[in-house]
Amino acid sequence: MTEIAAPPHRFDAAVALVPAADGLVRGRTLPAYANMVGPFGGVTAAAFVRAVQQHPDRLGDPISLTVNYAAPIADGDFDITARIMRTNRSNQHWTLELAQEGEVKTTATAVFGIRRDTWSDTETDMPSVPSPDAVPLQDLPDFIAWARNYEMRFVEGAIPDETSGEHPDSTTTLWVRDAPARPLDFPALTSLCDVFYPRVFLRRGQYMAAGTVSLTVYFHADAEEIAAQGDEYVLGTARSRRFSRGYFDQTAQMWGRDGTLLASTHQLVYFKG
Amino acid sequence: MTEIAAPPHRFDAAVALVPAADGLVRGRTLPAYANMVGPFGGVTAAAFVRAVQQHPDRLGDPISLTVNYAAPIADGDFDITARIMRTNRSNQHWTLELAQEGEVKTTATAVFGIRRDTWSDTETDMPSVPSPDAVPLQDLPDFIAWARNYEMRFVEGAIPDETSGEHPDSTTTLWVRDAPARPLDFPALTSLCDVFYPRVFLRRGQYMAAGTVSLTVYFHADAEEIAAQGDEYVLGTARSRRFSRGYFDQTAQMWGRDGTLLASTHQLVYFKG
Repeated sequence: MTEIAAPPHRFDAAVALVPAADGLVRGRTLPAYANMVGPFGGVTAAAFVRAVQQHPDRLGDPISLTVNYAAPIADGDFDITARIMRTNRSNQHWTLELAQEGEVKTTATAVFGIRRDTWSDTETDMPSVPSPDAVPLQDLPDFIAWARNYEMRFVEGAIPDETSGEHPDSTTTLWVRDAPARPLDFPALTSLCDVFYPRVFLRRGQYMAAGTVSLTVYFHADAEEIAAQGDEYVLGTARSRRFSRGYFDQTAQMWGRDGTLLASTHQLVYFKG
Repeated sequence: MTEIAAPPHRFDAAVALVPAADGLVRGRTLPAYANMVGPFGGVTAAAFVRAVQQHPDRLGDPISLTVNYAAPIADGDFDITARIMRTNRSNQHWTLELAQEGEVKTTATAVFGIRRDTWSDTETDMPSVPSPDAVPLQDLPDFIAWARNYEMRFVEGAIPDETSGEHPDSTTTLWVRDAPARPLDFPALTSLCDVFYPRVFLRRGQYMAAGTVSLTVYFHADAEEIAAQGDEYVLGTARSRRFSRGYFDQTAQMWGRDGTLLASTHQLVYFKG
């Protein structure tokens, strides 16, 4: 048999950035990662991580990231500006912007850093759930293009259909990985942090206008722990605390199959209904 | 009896900002709110909220805030730049910087917005705890100046002393309010979100070098709900999920005495030890 080099994964194409004038980097939205309006927010967040990672003056790996979704990104090219605000001995602070034709669509801040050995402990327990092969694969509706890039196996809180009705709590727990499978890295993990459909859909048993306003990711795992996941499933579990006057929060944890808490992630979501 | 106008509260002096050249606003650190190195991070976060609130083009009230602490703020004057990145119909995106003599010390992003009536629900239960008058007042050690501006009544997870030893979990729950008491508003609530001493002190039963790297606040309550708290205590409860290689996370909820979930807040903290 002849070994054929695999073509690059769609995800890598979706977050690919090339240097442009004035220190900007330029990317392009991929129809495969389209959401209802604009691209999937997870891929936009991942592009910010990638922008810092490939910056020549970058120090260390992602520690925290906050992305604010200011306006829909149109299909086509976008420019990311990544500015170093401060470099300390062991960490570095970034401010980022994504613009199209000079109009700001998304802003972000990031902290990257070098980790050192310290006392360590994971205080939360990983949810006790069946293994991925014991949980059926469930597709999201066809009109959500980006979801076809992920295998989702819902343990609880699957996306509602016409018969679901209201649900007493907002918890969704699922096994998820890229489709086709792809080794985990910081951008892919960042994108997975936004894989949960809006919690208000689950509570209300119906779709409505909703979109992430602000997303934060805290990276607990270092590069080695992330690489150790290979292309295995990640277990994500998300829940809201309060829905009030047009906004709700979501807090989620992303676990490696080996029991490593890879990331905590939080978001504030706009909804109408 | 003669009515005498109360002097302004120390907190208001700590977050007071005056217009300076080039659209900047200028503040000044207050020794009363000093932390181990630089000012208490809660007051810095509150100053960013205040900077947006008093901006002539501000739309609505705080929805979310993320503050990244890049470098220690020196005692003295500081300048805040508040830039509108995008104004939508019902919300507005801000990028902010705090600098001293042109050197960036803290960065932030904020989303402000106008709330509308929607379906609402608080999904988390308020912890069931004794009322504030049934919980003894506890002072933090004298060298933590800022803590003297808060009445803290610890229900669980009080700050450790020499005899404490290790603690199995990182939960602190406390009743807290400004000292002297002061009506709650968005800046004061923001500051309260950072009132928890570092969770690693509780787990390890000892002090060590630690400092917030990134703080996020999601404001669940609108201006009316916040004003309704008056100068009553707020119940805060905070916990970490993972301590790993120099960083840990903290997630907290801030409840009004009337059972309103006022804010959810998250932070990533650097530690050494």
